[in-house]
Amino acid sequence: MVEHGGLDLMCLNKSYSHSSTTSSSSSEREKKIFTKLKVSLTEDYPQKNAEILSGQYGTNLLLIGVSLMLAIAHHGASVKEEHLLSFITTLMILQLIWMIWYIVSRDRQSNLQPEKDVHATTCWIRGGLTLLALLSLIMDAFRIGYFVGYRSCVSAVLGVYPIIHATHTIAQVHFLWFHIKDVIKTFETFERFGVIHAVFTNLLLWCNGVMSEAEHFLNNHKRRLSSLGYVNLTIVDMEPHCNCTTSACSMFSNSLYYLYPFNIEYHIFVSAMLFVMWKNIGRSINLQYNRKRPATRTQGLVVGPILGLVALASTIGVLVVYIIHVEESMDTRESAIAMFYCYGIVMLVFMCSAGATGLLIYRADPMPMDTTKNPSRTLDTEILFGSSVGSWLMSWCSVVAVAASSSSPSYRWTNLMYSLLIVLEKYIQNLFIIESLYRQREDGEREDAEAAGPVPEIFSVTSSLAPPYNGIINRAYENPDKGCVTLENEQVENGQVYGTFSSRKHSAVPLHAGSNVAETPSKKRQILKNIAVFLFMCNISLWILPAFGCRPQYDNGLEQETFGFTIWTTVLNFAVPMNLFYRMHSVASLFEPQMCKN
Amino acid sequence: MVEHGGLDLMCLNKSYSHSSTTSSSSSEREKKIFTKLKVSLTEDYPQKNAEILSGQYGTNLLLIGVSLMLAIAHHGASVKEEHLLSFITTLMILQLIWMIWYIVSRDRQSNLQPEKDVHATTCWIRGGLTLLALLSLIMDAFRIGYFVGYRSCVSAVLGVYPIIHATHTIAQVHFLWFHIKDVIKTFETFERFGVIHAVFTNLLLWCNGVMSEAEHFLNNHKRRLSSLGYVNLTIVDMEPHCNCTTSACSMFSNSLYYLYPFNIEYHIFVSAMLFVMWKNIGRSINLQYNRKRPATRTQGLVVGPILGLVALASTIGVLVVYIIHVEESMDTRESAIAMFYCYGIVMLVFMCSAGATGLLIYRADPMPMDTTKNPSRTLDTEILFGSSVGSWLMSWCSVVAVAASSSSPSYRWTNLMYSLLIVLEKYIQNLFIIESLYRQREDGEREDAEAAGPVPEIFSVTSSLAPPYNGIINRAYENPDKGCVTLENEQVENGQVYGTFSSRKHSAVPLHAGSNVAETPSKKRQILKNIAVFLFMCNISLWILPAFGCRPQYDNGLEQETFGFTIWTTVLNFAVPMNLFYRMHSVASLFEPQMCKN
Repeated sequence: MVEHGGLDLMCLNKSYSHSSTTSSSSSEREKKIFTKLKVSLTEDYPQKNAEILSGQYGTNLLLIGVSLMLAIAHHGASVKEEHLLSFITTLMILQLIWMIWYIVSRDRQSNLQPEKDVHATTCWIRGGLTLLALLSLIMDAFRIGYFVGYRSCVSAVLGVYPIIHATHTIAQVHFLWFHIKDVIKTFETFERFGVIHAVFTNLLLWCNGVMSEAEHFLNNHKRRLSSLGYVNLTIVDMEPHCNCTTSACSMFSNSLYYLYPFNIEYHIFVSAMLFVMWKNIGRSINLQYNRKRPATRTQGLVVGPILGLVALASTIGVLVVYIIHVEESMDTRESAIAMFYCYGIVMLVFMCSAGATGLLIYRADPMPMDTTKNPSRTLDTEILFGSSVGSWLMSWCSVVAVAASSSSPSYRWTNLMYSLLIVLEKYIQNLFIIESLYRQREDGEREDAEAAGPVPEIFSVTSSLAPPYNGIINRAYENPDKGCVTLENEQVENGQVYGTFSSRKHSAVPLHAGSNVAETPSKKRQILKNIAVFLFMCNISLWILPAFGCRPQYDNGLEQETFGFTIWTTVLNFAVPMNLFYRMHSVASLFEPQMCKN
Repeated sequence: MVEHGGLDLMCLNKSYSHSSTTSSSSSEREKKIFTKLKVSLTEDYPQKNAEILSGQYGTNLLLIGVSLMLAIAHHGASVKEEHLLSFITTLMILQLIWMIWYIVSRDRQSNLQPEKDVHATTCWIRGGLTLLALLSLIMDAFRIGYFVGYRSCVSAVLGVYPIIHATHTIAQVHFLWFHIKDVIKTFETFERFGVIHAVFTNLLLWCNGVMSEAEHFLNNHKRRLSSLGYVNLTIVDMEPHCNCTTSACSMFSNSLYYLYPFNIEYHIFVSAMLFVMWKNIGRSINLQYNRKRPATRTQGLVVGPILGLVALASTIGVLVVYIIHVEESMDTRESAIAMFYCYGIVMLVFMCSAGATGLLIYRADPMPMDTTKNPSRTLDTEILFGSSVGSWLMSWCSVVAVAASSSSPSYRWTNLMYSLLIVLEKYIQNLFIIESLYRQREDGEREDAEAAGPVPEIFSVTSSLAPPYNGIINRAYENPDKGCVTLENEQVENGQVYGTFSSRKHSAVPLHAGSNVAETPSKKRQILKNIAVFLFMCNISLWILPAFGCRPQYDNGLEQETFGFTIWTTVLNFAVPMNLFYRMHSVASLFEPQMCKN
């Protein structure tokens, strides 16, 4: 895109200098200068610069919001929640305006069918997001109810914010369903700003949710501690200073905190999807590899779902017992924490074994990995890796605390085991998920190829680039040894024009030619599918626990002894939201490649 | 690489099943199985997995170190500095063993000339790093002296650590000079672990330096505050509990803190360079684009260096005045801070104008950007962008503090101006540097081409892939519109085999064909060079100030009022090291492309 833009301008430049000698009318000349300027402002801006320009803009938006949050966290007199909410409301209104502009301008050019990146998202993810958005809408309704009750003594911003947020949610879900896969090719620089604005608005909404949730949890935790007889900690009073005019205020404010986890996940997922859209701007999609995935088949799924359901059921049991026991007395508190760690160790041992089995199956079935350019998958990989960091840090802190602690509660060594298993489990699971993501296409295509009949040994590039396939061969991009060189070597060897597609088909054929191919791969695939379903449900379980208040890292006291209350709370405020996001993200990543394979 | 590995194994697999039918000797069979296993363990591991495996290992090393640091920051009884230092020493010893193994095994296969990535580093950077390493060695000597003085009451680790660190520094500088450009192609998976271990060992040494430096600065700051009559803050006593047996102990410990900034920069730079080496493992370098840069020419450099020297001189003046005045009394303190902000505003206005002029010159000279694959440049871009975040956050916090503050010192509005200008200056400077990085090659090549005589209009891919040029055409990788499609389209259109190189030359020619080319570009380039030199010296100035203790963000009190001591100190402990690194990194990035262009 970059170079095309540059070339266009240069051609324009050249043709302009030619034509100016033939026609001397100044109005025409002005028109051309104007056109040139317009082109250079809209189309010609080099992609790298446009990315940096808009990326820097978005980052600064987020940082303004974060600095406001930090000021609020101090509970000083000067910066209040209203200020932050007005800032976020302004950003949401701007995003609404951009979305409306985008949808309207798209509809006008409806004769031009826009390119779509089918890998950007799936129906499942959009469906899940719609559900999360519905829960967010309920949350907005509760917020409005709360505002109505206290309207005499709270800022009007607290009433405007949920209304704008609800509108924003509805518009955004519409956008997700109909436009998130678009590959933008017009007004690229402007659209880049629009999309990145949307990305960072959602990130800021996520940060805001995380902060409110953490503050609420911390206050609850302090209240619990002081009721158990620990030192008095200052509890910040969040209630407004007037009476509620309706009877439902406390119901509203209490229910809000059960809905927070969903709202938080909604915003972070949307921002990840919008980020993929941003990366796709100006990209050329290879239509050959841009086919829809085959439908899900569920045959052979027995062991995985059953074990998964057992895990899920026991998790809910553990959650209920934990939450009741941790508030009762010191003894039940300690036994609840010990129970949690034992349960966690069993879960994690099963998850590690499942992941390791999956990896061994992959190792037993060597296959070149799919390295086509796919921003969505790259982002998935980076997010998995990045969001593990929070939970790893938490685990290593626990290990240090256990090693250094002078007290010795009953759960000391189970905590150590649990923490080390958490590190190992994420290590293995990341490898498994990333390998699944990079393998999925091969499998799908192999079967497509089978279904389509015998595989032709040679594909002509020209035929594969015939009208419907006018994209580029993306495979060449990330894998240095394949792609152009293969292409060229083969040209030299055979004196003909082969495509990369043909060279990959070559490699796929020997796999089929081996012995017992018809039997083993489908068995292997069934095992893999069962593993994926099991891990999927385990990750949901491990999301539910911290999302609904089961956080023994706050309650066990070991880490607090070694790190002190302030440092340890800061670590947890950073690590727990990352861990929640990690679990949700791995749920989505596990669902997609394994379940959508047949 | 990935697919080749996979294919090799499959071929092996196939040939094995064939040959086993003809020869039935079991020893031969075992030998083959052994070979197969060896291949699959060393060569065949897919690149993506190997990267994730080793990346996760390195991240966890760092996190263990960070959790130890957090425990030390609490100043509890259980975790002491000795524990952290023993951990780091172990890592350094492991890295030493790996480096020795690597150098020895390289020397053995000296008949095979290893591929080199000439873009990985320059002589200037290695020279600078050697200087920093020398200062680190002096620091180690001081540390040994300090240990000798207090040897009766401090842990032996404090004596072992500087000795190992000195050995590590010497070995690493040798490695940097002779091996950092290597493109590793043997034992890839093992080497990946070795290199990433080195990357994260250096990162951990950086973190450790940053932490010690921050703690020392904070203690000084608290001492200053309490001497000025502010509330008593707990100052942690760092001195050992025995008398020094030599006379130089206090000299050693005081000098240490002037050497810290250099040690810190040394480790972060080395880890960035090693990271590029890690990214290069298994890569195929295109030798055609892998030429050395032309030598630096300095003609026409007048205005930039003069203005830069003025900036540097005034900076040193400001530093001295600031450090003396800020400790005297409340009045001189306030005037010192006010002076700093005025000086900063003047500097930043000049820097913004210089950067904006540079960007305008680039806009007036549209040129397709160089998009060849270059891990070193990609990392430069990401680091510039990433390390700006710290300082942006600090600036936005200042803006919030100024807006929210109830007190109104004389420097309130200059602080606001200064903070906004910091945001703007980094925004512009990043754009300028990144565009310089992505343009540099074009200019160099254009001149090379001129020097080499007329540019041939058509390059044969086969000739460009003749023995010395057996790399791949990297240009195809990042730019979806060029590369294979261009290649294929041109093949289709002309019935001949053209290279991407030829298509780029096509685009370069019209630029030369325009009017007054011979004059304008060199003038433009001289202006750009002057701008780069000026910004180079300004960035050195803005590095010197915080590195040697001029940090008005601690002293002005405005932010502390809005955010509270704890939050604001945490923000600064995170942002100041990032800002220091940003300045040093932009110094290196500004030096390289502009100065090495002629």
